Amino acid sequence: MSGRLYVIGTGPGNPAQMTPEALAAVVDATEFFGYGPYLDRLSLRPDQIRQASDNREELDRAKAALERAITGVNVCVVSGGDPGVFAMAAAVCEAIDNGPSEWRDVDLVVAPGITAMLAVAARIGAPLGHDFCAVSLSDNLKPWDIIENRLRLVAEAGLVIALYNPISKARPWQLGKAFEILRDVLPAEVPVIFGRAAGRPDERMTVARLADADASSADMATCVIIGSAETRVIARETKPDLVYTPRFIKDAAR
Amino acid sequence: MSGRLYVIGTGPGNPAQMTPEALAAVVDATEFFGYGPYLDRLSLRPDQIRQASDNREELDRAKAALERAITGVNVCVVSGGDPGVFAMAAAVCEAIDNGPSEWRDVDLVVAPGITAMLAVAARIGAPLGHDFCAVSLSDNLKPWDIIENRLRLVAEAGLVIALYNPISKARPWQLGKAFEILRDVLPAEVPVIFGRAAGRPDERMTVARLADADASSADMATCVIIGSAETRVIARETKPDLVYTPRFIKDAAR
Repeated sequence: MSGRLYVIGTGPGNPAQMTPEALAAVVDATEFFGYGPYLDRLSLRPDQIRQASDNREELDRAKAALERAITGVNVCVVSGGDPGVFAMAAAVCEAIDNGPSEWRDVDLVVAPGITAMLAVAARIGAPLGHDFCAVSLSDNLKPWDIIENRLRLVAEAGLVIALYNPISKARPWQLGKAFEILRDVLPAEVPVIFGRAAGRPDERMTVARLADADASSADMATCVIIGSAETRVIARETKPDLVYTPRFIKDAAR
Repeated sequence: MSGRLYVIGTGPGNPAQMTPEALAAVVDATEFFGYGPYLDRLSLRPDQIRQASDNREELDRAKAALERAITGVNVCVVSGGDPGVFAMAAAVCEAIDNGPSEWRDVDLVVAPGITAMLAVAARIGAPLGHDFCAVSLSDNLKPWDIIENRLRLVAEAGLVIALYNPISKARPWQLGKAFEILRDVLPAEVPVIFGRAAGRPDERMTVARLADADASSADMATCVIIGSAETRVIARETKPDLVYTPRFIKDAAR
């Protein structure tokens, strides 16, 4: 009899944004696999085992978790944010797809979480209030020319764009290049939100015009949201400005 | 002194998917504005006031909530799913943008929630494991030719597509037409997920090939997720099939 394999998301790091469903999975599991800083967000009992690994070892981690689950252990694979968005749920599915047939019998339970773009959007207003997309800027995951093509097409489509993995030490120039591409398609005054560590003590939210957006405003903990031509900024005197995308596009606005 | 205006999401309807942050807002507020079925998901005290309104009266509801908050009442505006995704956070921002200047002083707190596509994705594997978009199919919100253009562009871009508001009594043909448009761009075997009431007792999840996808499989409570050419189905004998989009696109896959 196989154990259960939970794949959970902690949300962006604010404990108040982790769902009861994910917390119940943590109580039920006895062995935990994940990137160390994500495992640090959990309160584990002394009998619960922690198997931390590097952020780049996702497929190996998925395989190790499946190997333990198949022996009857209840296992929990931990992602930040939502496990289905550029995270461990896809790695676990890839491992099942390409692994031994008995892995298909594992009782897989994925618990959704608050993904970064939703947490950032909530802190600044409602920039994702109409059609939007989530694009990973990591060219470790796909060739750069596919990324450029996707950015052009979604900007032409008028979607708000949430960029995941915008920048890292190993990928320093991609975000600046993305801004260049988008400046060819979108108006200069489109708001760009740099949402860092939303909901955590070290949160930092800044807004720039696309014309002025500077890639150095982002780091690895940042989700960058680029508005559409419809996205608006509400200036407030006593509070930070709000950014939102209206629910409607009128005929005349085309 | 203005009251606080919370805008919360209940998640898709499974109480275990509502965040502690949203639950804390419910405890703190004394007056609740929302579509009746969403308010029904909350456990309110006798001293808490319920102001239910029809689903189509979003802007009026936002204005009414702001009017109460400005008098010093702590108010809670309730959405299903995430309040920032095709929901009340944008309506509240619209009302502030176009309303009296004192509304800008209201202490606005948006609490994110699990939006439908994340809940559906979790139940079926990881279809949103790589780049994806969320598009509302409601032509009450924007002209139909904009929707057609967006669908073509995002399919050409290779994004997985989550369709919100896919069908209703007043909009019976739009989803079938969307499938027609996507069949011109995407392979016949692309998986289409009809995710109804994810995580609720009346949940129903079905998967079809794009070539065979039938709009009558969807209703108002359904989020439809259309895979990309990369999206894969894992057949399982003892469990429902899994659908996922791999994290990587190799050079050769172009």
